[in-house]
Amino acid sequence: MSNQKNKIFAIVKDDLADIETALSQSLNPYFELVSQVASHIMLSGGKRLRPLLFLLSTRICGYKGNIAIKFSSIFEYLHTASLLHDDIVDDAVLRRGQRVANAIWGNPIAVLVGDFLLARASAISVDAGSLEIIKVLSEITEEMSQGEIHQLIKKGSLDITETEYLEVIRRKTAVLFQGACRIGALISNASEEKEAALSTCGLHLGIAFQMVDDLIDYTSDTRTLGKEIGADLKEGKLTLPVIHSLKTAESSDRFLMEKIIKNKDFAAHEFETLVEMLRKYGGIAYTKKQAAAHIEKAKQALAVFSPSESREVFLLIADYILERNA
Amino acid sequence: MSNQKNKIFAIVKDDLADIETALSQSLNPYFELVSQVASHIMLSGGKRLRPLLFLLSTRICGYKGNIAIKFSSIFEYLHTASLLHDDIVDDAVLRRGQRVANAIWGNPIAVLVGDFLLARASAISVDAGSLEIIKVLSEITEEMSQGEIHQLIKKGSLDITETEYLEVIRRKTAVLFQGACRIGALISNASEEKEAALSTCGLHLGIAFQMVDDLIDYTSDTRTLGKEIGADLKEGKLTLPVIHSLKTAESSDRFLMEKIIKNKDFAAHEFETLVEMLRKYGGIAYTKKQAAAHIEKAKQALAVFSPSESREVFLLIADYILERNA
Repeated sequence: MSNQKNKIFAIVKDDLADIETALSQSLNPYFELVSQVASHIMLSGGKRLRPLLFLLSTRICGYKGNIAIKFSSIFEYLHTASLLHDDIVDDAVLRRGQRVANAIWGNPIAVLVGDFLLARASAISVDAGSLEIIKVLSEITEEMSQGEIHQLIKKGSLDITETEYLEVIRRKTAVLFQGACRIGALISNASEEKEAALSTCGLHLGIAFQMVDDLIDYTSDTRTLGKEIGADLKEGKLTLPVIHSLKTAESSDRFLMEKIIKNKDFAAHEFETLVEMLRKYGGIAYTKKQAAAHIEKAKQALAVFSPSESREVFLLIADYILERNA
Repeated sequence: MSNQKNKIFAIVKDDLADIETALSQSLNPYFELVSQVASHIMLSGGKRLRPLLFLLSTRICGYKGNIAIKFSSIFEYLHTASLLHDDIVDDAVLRRGQRVANAIWGNPIAVLVGDFLLARASAISVDAGSLEIIKVLSEITEEMSQGEIHQLIKKGSLDITETEYLEVIRRKTAVLFQGACRIGALISNASEEKEAALSTCGLHLGIAFQMVDDLIDYTSDTRTLGKEIGADLKEGKLTLPVIHSLKTAESSDRFLMEKIIKNKDFAAHEFETLVEMLRKYGGIAYTKKQAAAHIEKAKQALAVFSPSESREVFLLIADYILERNA
């Protein structure tokens, strides 16, 4: 897996360097503290997947303009703002192995720097000179906030269905992937067919990304994960591995699982028991299978494009999203 | 004063009714909870000053289109989002005499509904079909978030200067008033002269509005105020009445004032002592004088417009902003 990551990295090295430069340059804050807080989270090992997918989308569509690099920051800023506000929601302590911003600087600054990043994203978006793109971006932020609200409403509910779970992750995660790819096409004045293909590809990449993310919470250790073990469960966030297993479990095991889930201070051995249940009742395997199916759909959507290095990287990233374990 | 308020109300009654309808209709949320939280704060006696100033600005510029009413929601949504996020920052308990949203539903939902309102504002802004207007709006949100951050950085500082105070209130409050008036001109395709006049008028109205708001914290009781007495001071927020008085006080009185300010659990009689100092050293009078000067500038800016009912209402609102006591 590390090989695949290295392979991707070798091809997109220059893009990633450009993205880093743009992220710093576009920040342009009035106060040093804003840079500090924003950098703290942005420089803590983010994969820059969203800006990278945007750039690859412009390239696969033959974009010839000169604002794509700067524009790519939008997708990282929206993501970062969402993380900053999400950490308040989650009351999380660790993210990517570091203390979260609100634990260091307090909720207020995390909220306000998130707001600043949303505003920056909006300011940069005007540069493209396209009302259509701005409209798509505003729909993305609207969907993302509603997805987070949906997730919050469902917090602690043992009866969340797979359909609801899918709706939550589509909004809170996948619409941003989808938007990054679709706007890559829009900014390149690509055909509607290509725009639709990239939109579909991004949507499925995003869904798979979140499914794998949710899976990692049950299959990784704290060091690899960069956050607490069983963090989702401790926050009352029921994800597909659990939802599926609760549905298929025998009643006595279901009872046991529910008991562990309801007690948010579960011990390590209880968490292990739960993970065993997720294996026994297929929640882990099912989630992996669903994620793989979405990756497959994402790849198929790219068939409208002729073979190229950009398409190749897209396919490699799709595989990476499925196989990553941190 | 109540007479003046009634006089304004009689003239803009229909506008206010239209604004209320638009605020509900444009909300368009996926979840009932979002309506509940947003309505809780929006229906708790807000004066709708910002949407009203926007509408009056379109009217004074002879606007003939049909999206102004809907568009006016933007300014109330941006304001409401800022209140929701600000209450997390302030850790406030009461606003407009009601418990603040985050005290009822918790910080997470207050953050997320604020985000939703920002996103709605952005979505509605696309309707005007003007990149220039979107650009101005994005600059407003950027300035507002920086103003809030500046205020947060300065929290508890006894050495904040009048210049810094002005910079904070310009950004956190006045740019939105300014933007509402300026965009009223832009959407009406008014001349640059009229756009500049409304921009100037809005800016000074906003500065005066915040100065009076800050004054009320020292001149009103809880019932009229709708929030705790001495709330600004308890949050470590030093405003003009205090800043000016600290500067002009004799050293022994200054020492006494600083002692009260530093102890955020001050008793009622200590607060009274402080208010006496603000009177003794002219902080109250000075702030009122400064606010009056800004109101005067706001009114003068309107001289470019021929006399009309809209201009008359603008002038009445300017007086109301200065004279209001809650």
